[in-house]
Amino acid sequence: MKTDVSEDRELLARPAFAVLTTLAANGSPCSSVMWYRPDGDSLRMVAPAASVKAQHIARDDRVSVVVTDPANPYAYVEVRGRAVIERDDAAARDELRRIAARYIGENAEHYAASLSADPRVVIVVRPQRVRGRHGQQPG
Amino acid sequence: MKTDVSEDRELLARPAFAVLTTLAANGSPCSSVMWYRPDGDSLRMVAPAASVKAQHIARDDRVSVVVTDPANPYAYVEVRGRAVIERDDAAARDELRRIAARYIGENAEHYAASLSADPRVVIVVRPQRVRGRHGQQPG
Repeated sequence: MKTDVSEDRELLARPAFAVLTTLAANGSPCSSVMWYRPDGDSLRMVAPAASVKAQHIARDDRVSVVVTDPANPYAYVEVRGRAVIERDDAAARDELRRIAARYIGENAEHYAASLSADPRVVIVVRPQRVRGRHGQQPG
Repeated sequence: MKTDVSEDRELLARPAFAVLTTLAANGSPCSSVMWYRPDGDSLRMVAPAASVKAQHIARDDRVSVVVTDPANPYAYVEVRGRAVIERDDAAARDELRRIAARYIGENAEHYAASLSADPRVVIVVRPQRVRGRHGQQPG
């Protein structure tokens, strides 16, 4: 299939949703839906430090991410790569404000202020392979 | 988080899209977007027999699936489980017609007829854990 990298970047720049998959201790895949922010070639996400996904990544950094175009489910980007955990609660809350602004605009401040005191971490996904599909049907 | 199983079932019954994650030979997660059909507690999908995902499942049957509500990305169901490959091309094409009808209605026949002769398989996902989120924001 033909993939145009600029199409991939354009999709990732939208306030789309990411399905992040991490590996449990026994190697099983576990997925959840995440907000994210593209930053250069990386995708940045925020999660509670105590979350299962943060624990998984600390143990095994291999992840996959699928971002689907909210306007066209036949367009998506799959990223395979490795993730790094940045353990700085203040920085994670700043990042979450920036990420949230992509999705909920001016409500991001209120949202960030309403979060529990549980420490957050930034999950930085560094892509190793990116595969885009733009418009085709599955099958 | 509170999950109502009937809400999960209702979401899975829609023509939503599934992100299926399988494990590569080295244990890395690989994800792709799939059509599916719920059948009792299982989710049925169709893929080329030679596809990477079918090869992955034949080697390691552990999968995760996320189905997001097309009308509300804050509502989704995550399934963790094991997958079985049913290797019967004719049955897989029948299944694909049924699955496609969920998404493209009367165009399903035309779609199924337009496929290549490469043999297809049915991927049956048997859930072991189901986790639904219905309406909350991530963070």
